[in-house]
Amino acid sequence: LRDGDKKTLRAFLDSQEPADIATILDTLEAAEALAAMRHVDLYEQAQIFGYLDPEYQIELSDLMGRRELARLMSAMSHDERVDLFKNLDPVAREAVLPGLAKAERDDLRKLASYPEDTAGSIMTSDYATLTPDMTAKEAIEALRNQALDAETVYQAYIIDEERQLVGVISLRDLIVARANARVRNLMDTNPVFIRAEADREEAAQIISRYDLIALPVINGGDKLVGIVTQDDAMDVQEQEATTDFHKVGTVSGLKANVRDASIFVLYRARIVWLVLLVFGNIFSGAGIAFFEDTIAAHLALLFFLPLLIASGGNAGAQSATLMVRALATGDVRMSDWASVLGREFATALLLGLTMAAAVSLIGVLRAGPDIALVVALSMVAIVLVGAMIGMSLPFVLSRLKLDPATASAPLVTSIADVTGVLIYFTIATQVLAMQAT
Amino acid sequence: LRDGDKKTLRAFLDSQEPADIATILDTLEAAEALAAMRHVDLYEQAQIFGYLDPEYQIELSDLMGRRELARLMSAMSHDERVDLFKNLDPVAREAVLPGLAKAERDDLRKLASYPEDTAGSIMTSDYATLTPDMTAKEAIEALRNQALDAETVYQAYIIDEERQLVGVISLRDLIVARANARVRNLMDTNPVFIRAEADREEAAQIISRYDLIALPVINGGDKLVGIVTQDDAMDVQEQEATTDFHKVGTVSGLKANVRDASIFVLYRARIVWLVLLVFGNIFSGAGIAFFEDTIAAHLALLFFLPLLIASGGNAGAQSATLMVRALATGDVRMSDWASVLGREFATALLLGLTMAAAVSLIGVLRAGPDIALVVALSMVAIVLVGAMIGMSLPFVLSRLKLDPATASAPLVTSIADVTGVLIYFTIATQVLAMQAT
Repeated sequence: LRDGDKKTLRAFLDSQEPADIATILDTLEAAEALAAMRHVDLYEQAQIFGYLDPEYQIELSDLMGRRELARLMSAMSHDERVDLFKNLDPVAREAVLPGLAKAERDDLRKLASYPEDTAGSIMTSDYATLTPDMTAKEAIEALRNQALDAETVYQAYIIDEERQLVGVISLRDLIVARANARVRNLMDTNPVFIRAEADREEAAQIISRYDLIALPVINGGDKLVGIVTQDDAMDVQEQEATTDFHKVGTVSGLKANVRDASIFVLYRARIVWLVLLVFGNIFSGAGIAFFEDTIAAHLALLFFLPLLIASGGNAGAQSATLMVRALATGDVRMSDWASVLGREFATALLLGLTMAAAVSLIGVLRAGPDIALVVALSMVAIVLVGAMIGMSLPFVLSRLKLDPATASAPLVTSIADVTGVLIYFTIATQVLAMQAT
Repeated sequence: LRDGDKKTLRAFLDSQEPADIATILDTLEAAEALAAMRHVDLYEQAQIFGYLDPEYQIELSDLMGRRELARLMSAMSHDERVDLFKNLDPVAREAVLPGLAKAERDDLRKLASYPEDTAGSIMTSDYATLTPDMTAKEAIEALRNQALDAETVYQAYIIDEERQLVGVISLRDLIVARANARVRNLMDTNPVFIRAEADREEAAQIISRYDLIALPVINGGDKLVGIVTQDDAMDVQEQEATTDFHKVGTVSGLKANVRDASIFVLYRARIVWLVLLVFGNIFSGAGIAFFEDTIAAHLALLFFLPLLIASGGNAGAQSATLMVRALATGDVRMSDWASVLGREFATALLLGLTMAAAVSLIGVLRAGPDIALVVALSMVAIVLVGAMIGMSLPFVLSRLKLDPATASAPLVTSIADVTGVLIYFTIATQVLAMQAT
């Protein structure tokens, strides 16, 4: 590929999907990638460029002249263009702006103004519009003219003179309709929409819920300002799932691909929670130290310590995992708290009894009936308390307007560990003292 | 709503999205829901029905006559119809089949024959087809005629006499093309496709990667047998993320919504791993018991036990979380193992040193320099080993053709706990023996 003649290279590039070409370019040196990219036309260049990693986009941008970059940005879809613009350094931004048409500059500034994680930040402004008085035939003709520039023509948005959204129509409905039927009478006058300042995750959920191709976005003045498309919603859904996944594993704020992230970035994403959890575990250690006399008198108790406290932590981690995910997908809402808690109590009781049966057998064999009784009682109590903590913490965090995913398995485990130590040795001290008398 | 007059009810239903009507019906008694649903036309009934939970679909089906059910199923989209069919009990299946047209019966049987979790199991057979010799105008006319039945007309599939896929064209390209241009010359002759027996997650990933509206599915004989649409891909993506999420929290095989799941279902999804992990933790207990002499001589060591072994588990849980998710999204591949491992080693070393610095301070204050040294050394070693275990386990599972998500936080924590106990008390025994001499 590298030293190939131009014709073969162009034929090869023509036969490949833009996403695949982007993957191949990613393996080349930036200068080579840029040279290869120049063999396809501007429109395809823009498509390929849109599939590249943000960091690599910047690397290539730095190699381009500002005119070439401006031309490329003009050809990119509006949402990808603004993402690139946001990633450029201030000097590069100023350099590229004069090369763009005024309308493009204004569009860039407007799209770039929406805060991260809002619906506005993932929308695109290249949507197709119609007016209510068009006939179906005129509307199809209008869409044909907008087809090259619009992100999708399969959903068209009907706006009035003030750019307020008055309806939505699908190309499918237009094609099926009689040629002289009016858009006004064909359109859905009650379309699903979202506000620009809403959470981007909400936009993705709405698109998924209603199986939409695109979701219109309106601003504070009820004017149509953009659309969020289904493929962008898929990306958001995957990114949000990854963020929650990481949070549950106490990895925070890691945006880069794990394969490409630097050691320092990985370190920073992990150290804070690790250190916080160490201090949490000091309480467990203090709990053990507090019961040193009981332990010294019955060293056999130590054998069961890891499995008891781990069981509470594990049951709690299960509950927290279920709740964090259910709250994220909307399967469970805050108002379901009481009913979910009741069922969790019953479930945890069954789990605790089963586990108690399993360990009391080991207890009898290894340390006699007294300690077996202590272990069995502790197991039921510890699993029950662990599960209650794991279940409640995501709700509490959510109520406090914090992310429920902060209720990570390690955090729940640490809290359950402390209570586990206290429960175990309290029961042990009581029961063994009773037996001794 | 319940006792409302028919007119108001119908007007209300007309103004709502099918997905929202389904949500409302879900709160009614089955008989009431069925009565309400009968107020809209068959086509919309089928849409609403498709949005209902599988269990509720069955409940309503049981209330319908077999003729009514057959009529409804005829109107449903092919993929939703087969999902319903699979959920019916054998008696209901046999009852409903005679009410369907022969083509529908054959279609049902064919779609139902693909194993769960394959691309075939989520595809639909109501796709739009064209032939290569049509003109653009004829093609649009053909799509207009197929619009009512096809899941999407925005992508059309061009097949030859043997139903082999020879090309794909978008409605957008057809609309933009000259009226008498041939489909043969307009179509993409090298379309992205998937085999019916491939993993459904792979289908979702391809759709996301190439931003497709629909992905064609071909069978062993290279014949086109269906398409997977983007909205189904979104559902798959969300379900797979939920499954991985649950697995990482050691909850297995829970398909129902957490809010609706019975206590027994929740119990069953959790008990196996809890018990398995108990037995894993016995090794930690045995490790502690093995070092009883060292512990008895230096009870102060116990204070640091929870925070040391928890730190190894937490660092391991972080690594495992990162790897499980990266392998699931394709961000990291098996071939990246060596480079990821190298970086993880460096990261874990930094993490371990930071943590050692934090705890050695507590160690000196609480138990003097000897034990502080033991604790600091142990911390570095334990974090390093925990992180290596957490990072490697998902790769090992993946290599053994097992799901990497089985490397759950609790499993990694349990393994790290055992090694943590052994490392800590081994170092303690050595160092303290040295100091004593």
